[in-house]
Amino acid sequence: MNYHLQPKSHKIAVLAEGSFGVLESKTATVLIRYLPDNIVAVIDSRNTGKDVSDIIDIGKGIPVVRNLSEAMQYDPTLLAIGIAPPGGELPPAWRSTIYEAIHSGLHIMSGLHHFLSEDVELVDLAEKHNVVLWDARKPPDNLPVATCLAADVDATVILTVGSDCRVGKMLSGIEITQAARKKSLNAEFCPTGQNGIMVWGWGIAIDAVISDFTAGAAEEIVLEGAKNHDLLIVEGQGSLVHPGYSGVTLSLLHGSMPDAMIFCHQPSRKQVARYTVPLPSLPDMIMQYEMLTNPIKPAKVIGVALNCFDLSERESYQAIDAVETETGLPATDVVKFGADKLVDAIQRL
Amino acid sequence: MNYHLQPKSHKIAVLAEGSFGVLESKTATVLIRYLPDNIVAVIDSRNTGKDVSDIIDIGKGIPVVRNLSEAMQYDPTLLAIGIAPPGGELPPAWRSTIYEAIHSGLHIMSGLHHFLSEDVELVDLAEKHNVVLWDARKPPDNLPVATCLAADVDATVILTVGSDCRVGKMLSGIEITQAARKKSLNAEFCPTGQNGIMVWGWGIAIDAVISDFTAGAAEEIVLEGAKNHDLLIVEGQGSLVHPGYSGVTLSLLHGSMPDAMIFCHQPSRKQVARYTVPLPSLPDMIMQYEMLTNPIKPAKVIGVALNCFDLSERESYQAIDAVETETGLPATDVVKFGADKLVDAIQRL
Repeated sequence: MNYHLQPKSHKIAVLAEGSFGVLESKTATVLIRYLPDNIVAVIDSRNTGKDVSDIIDIGKGIPVVRNLSEAMQYDPTLLAIGIAPPGGELPPAWRSTIYEAIHSGLHIMSGLHHFLSEDVELVDLAEKHNVVLWDARKPPDNLPVATCLAADVDATVILTVGSDCRVGKMLSGIEITQAARKKSLNAEFCPTGQNGIMVWGWGIAIDAVISDFTAGAAEEIVLEGAKNHDLLIVEGQGSLVHPGYSGVTLSLLHGSMPDAMIFCHQPSRKQVARYTVPLPSLPDMIMQYEMLTNPIKPAKVIGVALNCFDLSERESYQAIDAVETETGLPATDVVKFGADKLVDAIQRL
Repeated sequence: MNYHLQPKSHKIAVLAEGSFGVLESKTATVLIRYLPDNIVAVIDSRNTGKDVSDIIDIGKGIPVVRNLSEAMQYDPTLLAIGIAPPGGELPPAWRSTIYEAIHSGLHIMSGLHHFLSEDVELVDLAEKHNVVLWDARKPPDNLPVATCLAADVDATVILTVGSDCRVGKMLSGIEITQAARKKSLNAEFCPTGQNGIMVWGWGIAIDAVISDFTAGAAEEIVLEGAKNHDLLIVEGQGSLVHPGYSGVTLSLLHGSMPDAMIFCHQPSRKQVARYTVPLPSLPDMIMQYEMLTNPIKPAKVIGVALNCFDLSERESYQAIDAVETETGLPATDVVKFGADKLVDAIQRL
């Protein structure tokens, strides 16, 4: 299990140089949404002097600063890499910022494909300064092939599934978990991707696992969460109609063995992002998920989480009504209208 | 692409110490079936002095010998690891045989999880003796995320799918390819697992690929095969109802983008091997595959390959008739009765 740093115990500077914004820096945005009390500054020289909330609507009071040395006045203990580099490699300018952070005694938290903890130069430097390089995307060694162990846990397991990447499977998972806790349910969010792991402090990035063991990783996550909780909300990944990532999605479905699913969708999305694959109807997509659970452990979709970020409030309500009519399931936008409706559906199980 | 050694140009000694048999040594059996002219000896001290055909029905004339030094009298140029070690690690006894083989100037071909080419000691020794350590299971670097490129190839793409692991997806793929070639079709088998790769000399073991890139690996295999061939038979993996490997199966389905599928099944198999998951009916399993292709590139199952190894000839015919009635599709056992029926179905496309 990937458990090395507890972000909630740190003061965090977020590196988002050159691309801080709603859509450009998903990691930074997620950290600001869920760890607002821990984020002391965001680094993006293009936006120096602004308040975070001027740019992404949330994070009021968090300053955007020019560089790490400006951020140091807020006494951070950890630097989070809040953006993904073009091409997957670490740009030289970021590398020098990471050097500087390590020299200043900051731990580094990263969700990059390029593992900092396998970068000899950085590892040497980190050892010298006694700081941790935490790669949230790096899976643990010795994961098993899944063997249906997740079916045996006492906890109720809910998996967020969806129509595509980036429709809100992580966000819905966290919002449902938090709403359930407000109702005094002993709920835990089970992260399966680097952003969720960075926010929540544990989990496995299952898309970084060798495919033989991907369902096994999902199983491990459920077993871990079930040790101390009665209700697990497992973060979904990808989609069954995604040409690149559908295998990750199915591994997660069969490895986590949910008791029920929440279907996540963005009403304005008509085809798989970056592909020319049209999305099937919601009932057809829901049926695919349910049908694939049938032979192993039958589970139903019991609610729909709609991501209406690009719709007005009136349009959002219309979209929700339309989906409730089309699917016969309770629907909501968890960010705009809260997740209680979906927690209610879970409590009716 | 994994292309380092051409097994067909070698004289091969197969290591199967302690477990040579029909079910115990799948790799050894497959090598003997498809490279009979290249295999000069099988090493298994339990069966010293026997003929291979005494034990597994095929491979007449190939001797079973006590150890590598006995095998050396047949002048092998390559040692193939023909068994999988218990627990995945390399047993010390095998390690010493590999040492001895390298010292004798033999190349090593392995499908083990433990990559010989990353074993410092073996790599040093291999360099000294100028031999190749070929890990058939080791995927190439820099595989892409799948982007539907396989849809654009001119070749007709057939994927063997199935009800479970070890029901004959590789065997059917090779038999169909060979039968198609006999009919002068420009056909190529596209291996996706270590045994197929060792027999055929190229391919990618997609279950060893990080799950983000598993469909991308399948795409690469199809693009490679389509360079010089009109008909590709892609080796399937796992099953959509396999709790451990279903994600690999779906990655392969969406990455290879077949024009049609051949469904492989063992009539006597009633549940997923090593699991307590009952197999759905054949029409239900076939429907799952077809439904999952629909949103991306619709493809039908056009024939059934039955593995009747444990049935009499009469029972085999009965099983084939029953499946043809149940599914409305042509069915056969490709080992017992040839693959022409399935090639005919492909030619009707």
